[in-house]
Amino acid sequence: MINIADAPIGVFDSGVGGLTVAREIMRQIPNERIVYFGDTARVPYGSKSRETITRFSKQIVRFLKTYDVKTIVVACNTASAYALDTLEKEIDIPIIGVVKPGAKVASDATRNGKIGVIGTEATIGSQIYTQYIKEINPEATIYGKACPLFCPLVEEGLWQDPVTDEIARRYLSELIDIDIDTLILGCTHYPLIHSTVAKIMGEGVTLVNPAYETARELKEMLEKNNLLQTTPPALGSNQYQFFVSDGAEKFKHFANSIIQYGILSAKTINIEEY
Amino acid sequence: MINIADAPIGVFDSGVGGLTVAREIMRQIPNERIVYFGDTARVPYGSKSRETITRFSKQIVRFLKTYDVKTIVVACNTASAYALDTLEKEIDIPIIGVVKPGAKVASDATRNGKIGVIGTEATIGSQIYTQYIKEINPEATIYGKACPLFCPLVEEGLWQDPVTDEIARRYLSELIDIDIDTLILGCTHYPLIHSTVAKIMGEGVTLVNPAYETARELKEMLEKNNLLQTTPPALGSNQYQFFVSDGAEKFKHFANSIIQYGILSAKTINIEEY
Repeated sequence: MINIADAPIGVFDSGVGGLTVAREIMRQIPNERIVYFGDTARVPYGSKSRETITRFSKQIVRFLKTYDVKTIVVACNTASAYALDTLEKEIDIPIIGVVKPGAKVASDATRNGKIGVIGTEATIGSQIYTQYIKEINPEATIYGKACPLFCPLVEEGLWQDPVTDEIARRYLSELIDIDIDTLILGCTHYPLIHSTVAKIMGEGVTLVNPAYETARELKEMLEKNNLLQTTPPALGSNQYQFFVSDGAEKFKHFANSIIQYGILSAKTINIEEY
Repeated sequence: MINIADAPIGVFDSGVGGLTVAREIMRQIPNERIVYFGDTARVPYGSKSRETITRFSKQIVRFLKTYDVKTIVVACNTASAYALDTLEKEIDIPIIGVVKPGAKVASDATRNGKIGVIGTEATIGSQIYTQYIKEINPEATIYGKACPLFCPLVEEGLWQDPVTDEIARRYLSELIDIDIDTLILGCTHYPLIHSTVAKIMGEGVTLVNPAYETARELKEMLEKNNLLQTTPPALGSNQYQFFVSDGAEKFKHFANSIIQYGILSAKTINIEEY
């Protein structure tokens, strides 16, 4: 009899950013197998529309299901904001995004009720963090700020650089003026410039990385549904598989700078066929 | 009898950048009709692979042919670098890119034989400018430099900004050290930061914008093939039509900052269906 717990977890993102979420899953539930998909042919998602992101996300879910995944993690804030509702209605396995977990932590963390969210144009425009936080903490006030240059700066490797400092100061100044005490890093690229954002926001502001809480909620959900893998994978088994829609070699290079487990292989597939 | 000269010119780009080429065509041959396509759902192209860019470009050519275009202008350096050869073999109408015209002007303009090219990772990696320039001027030495942050900075509107200055100084310093006297703006976004690049390179360096020469070669080619439209379009006719794969409203907004003719309409289509 096939044990569903043996099935892999599907994780997807517009590109490499979701690796910060995959990394957290690897850390917290190390027995699990993961099939990761990065949509590198159509990256970035953050400046595109709900219709387009939803169409792309549906194709990816169809692809991941060919690997008989037991659950799917939408490791992209933009796709979580725009497509999660639609995806939930269409598939018969549990699916979780990164927005709700991030909103929960921020709601718990704030003391003065003023929460900032930084993310892509799409994520901020969707007001999805505001909506989730208000459900938990109706008294909270949420300030969103789109930071479109952060992703290209991260992808260019300028994680600690005067230019990134300057751009961050411009984006974040209004959040400082408003006196927020909690800031959600609402894009999976942003944990990579955590130290820059922390320096500019100052010690009084708690930075929330939704990746940690997402992995925690994933673990809880798997346990509740008897889907948690309790035995380590067999030696030599292909525990982590990576697929992209373009540039597997380049992806591997970037991925290896984020994930310490060693990306054994990454394969390019034509996602438009799904 | 249908006059082929009445047919529109198809122009495509990965997004909005190709509008700098469309603008030049509108200026130089104002009687022509244009069908423009910007692949805003999958922009940018500059960091993606030859296979992917070629697949995307073929879909776009199929779309443009549904408008019975008499010729196609690949108004994107990356697509010109990667896909033009393949496209030429597959279609029965003339097709021109922006690389060859740019290479020609630079070959004519240089006095010391040292030519710089700036562009996307893909365009620079392809060495296509080097190849074309060497055909015209075998003595020339060509120095390519990828500038991946220029496009996001332009799209963020930082056309004249200290951050763009700083990034430009970093990208361009080695070209200054090498003492080039001619620099090709090998990406359709770059004419929008012409003044920044000119300031940093100094007066001794000639900047080449391939858009101008592309429009000139297009005109020559149309004349030679008796395809030039000699009469102005009828009043009220839809002379310029714009299509995108995502975000028609946003495209219109950006397009209107580049083209002064007024973008009457932009329509979103699903390019993956072509």
